[in-house]
Amino acid sequence: MSDENNNKTDSAILLIHCPDAKGLVASITDFVFKNNGNILYLDQHVDTQKSIFFMRIEWDLKGFAIPRDKIGEIFDASLGKKFRMHWTLNFSDEAPRIAIFVSKLPHCLYDILSRYKSGEWKIDIPLIISNHPDLKSVADTHDIDYHVFPITKENRVFQEAKELSLLKEHRIDLVVLARYMQILSNDFISQFQSQIINIHHSFLPAFPGAKPYHSAYERGVKVIGATSHYVTADLDNGPIIEQDVTRVSHADSINDLIRKGRDLEKIVLSRAVWYHINRKVLAYDNRTVVFT
Amino acid sequence: MSDENNNKTDSAILLIHCPDAKGLVASITDFVFKNNGNILYLDQHVDTQKSIFFMRIEWDLKGFAIPRDKIGEIFDASLGKKFRMHWTLNFSDEAPRIAIFVSKLPHCLYDILSRYKSGEWKIDIPLIISNHPDLKSVADTHDIDYHVFPITKENRVFQEAKELSLLKEHRIDLVVLARYMQILSNDFISQFQSQIINIHHSFLPAFPGAKPYHSAYERGVKVIGATSHYVTADLDNGPIIEQDVTRVSHADSINDLIRKGRDLEKIVLSRAVWYHINRKVLAYDNRTVVFT
Amino acid sequence: MSDENNNKTDSAILLIHCPDAKGLVASITDFVFKNNGNILYLDQHVDTQKSIFFMRIEWDLKGFAIPRDKIGEIFDASLGKKFRMHWTLNFSDEAPRIAIFVSKLPHCLYDILSRYKSGEWKIDIPLIISNHPDLKSVADTHDIDYHVFPITKENRVFQEAKELSLLKEHRIDLVVLARYMQILSNDFISQFQSQIINIHHSFLPAFPGAKPYHSAYERGVKVIGATSHYVTADLDNGPIIEQDVTRVSHADSINDLIRKGRDLEKIVLSRAVWYHINRKVLAYDNRTVVFT
Amino acid sequence: MSDENNNKTDSAILLIHCPDAKGLVASITDFVFKNNGNILYLDQHVDTQKSIFFMRIEWDLKGFAIPRDKIGEIFDASLGKKFRMHWTLNFSDEAPRIAIFVSKLPHCLYDILSRYKSGEWKIDIPLIISNHPDLKSVADTHDIDYHVFPITKENRVFQEAKELSLLKEHRIDLVVLARYMQILSNDFISQFQSQIINIHHSFLPAFPGAKPYHSAYERGVKVIGATSHYVTADLDNGPIIEQDVTRVSHADSINDLIRKGRDLEKIVLSRAVWYHINRKVLAYDNRTVVFT
Repeated sequence: MSDENNNKTDSAILLIHCPDAKGLVASITDFVFKNNGNILYLDQHVDTQKSIFFMRIEWDLKGFAIPRDKIGEIFDASLGKKFRMHWTLNFSDEAPRIAIFVSKLPHCLYDILSRYKSGEWKIDIPLIISNHPDLKSVADTHDIDYHVFPITKENRVFQEAKELSLLKEHRIDLVVLARYMQILSNDFISQFQSQIINIHHSFLPAFPGAKPYHSAYERGVKVIGATSHYVTADLDNGPIIEQDVTRVSHADSINDLIRKGRDLEKIVLSRAVWYHINRKVLAYDNRTVVFT
Repeated sequence: MSDENNNKTDSAILLIHCPDAKGLVASITDFVFKNNGNILYLDQHVDTQKSIFFMRIEWDLKGFAIPRDKIGEIFDASLGKKFRMHWTLNFSDEAPRIAIFVSKLPHCLYDILSRYKSGEWKIDIPLIISNHPDLKSVADTHDIDYHVFPITKENRVFQEAKELSLLKEHRIDLVVLARYMQILSNDFISQFQSQIINIHHSFLPAFPGAKPYHSAYERGVKVIGATSHYVTADLDNGPIIEQDVTRVSHADSINDLIRKGRDLEKIVLSRAVWYHINRKVLAYDNRTVVFT
Repeated sequence: MSDENNNKTDSAILLIHCPDAKGLVASITDFVFKNNGNILYLDQHVDTQKSIFFMRIEWDLKGFAIPRDKIGEIFDASLGKKFRMHWTLNFSDEAPRIAIFVSKLPHCLYDILSRYKSGEWKIDIPLIISNHPDLKSVADTHDIDYHVFPITKENRVFQEAKELSLLKEHRIDLVVLARYMQILSNDFISQFQSQIINIHHSFLPAFPGAKPYHSAYERGVKVIGATSHYVTADLDNGPIIEQDVTRVSHADSINDLIRKGRDLEKIVLSRAVWYHINRKVLAYDNRTVVFT
Repeated sequence: MSDENNNKTDSAILLIHCPDAKGLVASITDFVFKNNGNILYLDQHVDTQKSIFFMRIEWDLKGFAIPRDKIGEIFDASLGKKFRMHWTLNFSDEAPRIAIFVSKLPHCLYDILSRYKSGEWKIDIPLIISNHPDLKSVADTHDIDYHVFPITKENRVFQEAKELSLLKEHRIDLVVLARYMQILSNDFISQFQSQIINIHHSFLPAFPGAKPYHSAYERGVKVIGATSHYVTADLDNGPIIEQDVTRVSHADSINDLIRKGRDLEKIVLSRAVWYHINRKVLAYDNRTVVFT
């Protein structure tokens, strides 16, 4: 679904994964077809190694025989239980609610805010959270609440509790770590499974951890990258949503790598967030299916 | 389908396009499902502007209820006529028969021959045709017949007749113009619709015609490209199958562009031929659907 | 020179082009060497077709024997006249003064403003000019003056005169057309030669003019691009500073091309502006030398 | 220098690195200038962290005041000793002598041979060495000697001695490991320092060691790569000459990664070899300077 299609009627988006079985595509498309749904998007994937079936299907709600608030229930009764499906149902007119976490570097924050404020993305950003006060003026400029929670070893649990409370209060669907330089606790992560997206400034699994541009310079690579992934308990090891790279040469200093990397980071993070808010990503095991 | 899966049983590949209609995916997948076919690949696309439906579906022939030589007939009777489908049915164990046309530049020829001789591609190349004798030794080295038909304005019709006769005699499925520097007549092209693939040494529609690298140098572009397309009566304007680009700079001379372009040309042409021989391309109007 | 090196002492940057001659590099580097300058950057290029020599040389001003305000004069007397050089001398501590022209699309404007406000670029942006009032709130948010000059065939000369007057008053060094959808008159352009940078939303010379994404969709290309160039009297034909591309497929609608293109446009324009403000670009004939 | 410029007179190519010092560029260019040399190419780089100066300078030998066989000696006496330079002097009319090492995979071998046989590269390939007999027919087809040395833990030293003897006998300048799946001993490597180029089928430092495509699949990366590097005692850790990448998705099986990677490997290896044989690479510490 394109973000420009403002005149479209609303649509339903179903993301499904389940054990592979004969007849899945036929059954699901038939469900939509028989209820008078016009399919706008259909893509499916089978992980043949693990025999898992994945599908994204989107259809026009205009004229659909089942009322919106009954679709999930009836789908589950018809097919969900039978095929042991994990499924999520979303509607295109629902704007995801996003909290952004930042530290001191502003480029990813600016990029997301410009897409939000210009209407490029249909989302709500009710709050920005940081461990530093530095970027408060950016939040102020864009009229968004900015909450500072300095983090130390000692206060992490306590501060995270306050952050989580804010996230709940604001009914946050997605946490975006926009160069947030703190590690979240497993407890925090477990409350937002596949709902926290991070940007790491290297093409993982190369150069995990801190100072990847310095490591890249030391190693003398000819290509640098950035990686956006869901955050899991295993640091820098969550399911990758998007990666991209750019060429560098011997003539590039560490500062040049940082400069070139900045543009990569913001674009790669924004692509990953865009896929997520358009319900195009399914994470399983340590991989993602991205229906582009 | 990957070219490495040599141990797989044979499969059937159906390429379909037809006016879009509700229930198409359900009907087609149901046809395979009810006849006990295991779907190996499924992808579909709807051109919403023109309301055309496209599908590539591939299924395992092992245990399929319909014998191989009856599948087309029964599919057409069940669904093809009803939905006014254009469809082609191929089987994964059929090796396409390819004729390569060359002039004097050998790099694309070498690239295709190395994929053929190494078994990377399952194809047959019974003959190479050229308007020059220069590359005969390459053909000889690889034990392939090499036919020379010098072309002039006066003899074109006559020479093409001999070429066409050779193509028919060898039951050629696909003609690959591997930097062949002659223009084929409309009559020739009409006998191999969507069966002639050309490589043009620019990112079309920029720099059509002769000497694109010279034009690219003159224009001072920072990116050069190559384009592989089906040949139609409209020169350099056929449906594009694949394009790719590489960066250049002020420091690159025309000869540097030619050198960098050579690698682009051979890779882009080979990707396009690979898509075609694996039945992944559907051409319509002046566009292609490439199911990657 | 990297934009991060804030602690560096100031440096002098000399951009030179002249007829090629033996001894040029030796003479110029000797000039810096003998005056006790430490070279920080040196790159040169010879257009062998036209026998033109190009150089960018940057040296530390600390300990340099010639006072800053005499360097140009002495260089010209020593070498400039002798070799018939065109040269410009800049100093790294001078912040270029930029005016941004916009119409209704905000993404390029947002990208430049975020680099400005975050300190990523050392520039001044005293004003934004538009033919529409739409983006005034963006300018307000960033505390920059926003001037609206609606343009019609009839009033163009008159409105441009007012714009030029503003540019002069604010001592503008560079005009950035950030998706400004009006054509500037030759008179306007002649007053800012190699000082107006535009972004065109295609990989020129493919798809010049209006609606390039629609044309790209119609042509069925597999790659789209963006081009940043100096503006000359010959529309969409000025010297190209930077280009980049991204892959698209049959599955991308025109709106998808527009969405993917937006990110290309803003990054390509910002790269071009960065090269310019860091004195890395030399334009001649219809080409650029970009010392990266 | 482009490989197409067959009509050019011969040129001298000097590769230099030494401690950085004021006046280096002036002194070196002055040496060429005073001896009536016309500079065809000049590029230099300073590693400011380690204060090392690098230069590639190429000049026309026509009319040069110093006879070819005295250039090195006189340069060293004039500048080399004074600036403690490491330098190598080569002449453009000397064809490097290359030995290719292969195992069972033919794609890199085919790519190099096609460039050799077509005259794209001015080199000699007097022999191919393998630990398997499989690719002998490819060597036969191209009329090149093929030597089989099966390698076991026990016989490695003995077999390498025979290989080294062959390399010496044929006066080999460069060993290319074209998907050669054996590890060379430190003794072997020490005899060909910066003269052995390997291709590794991942974007190092990600996925070193065996089966990188399997690891890439497991990790769920969205980009795969290939890396060409000089071989040092530290496996997969030598100075990187060239890297490139290609996008992959969840839909790509391991076999798809292998297929896409094949094209990357052959192109990346051939680019690295081309840089080397055109005397464009300087290795130091664990990095390379590549003068493109």
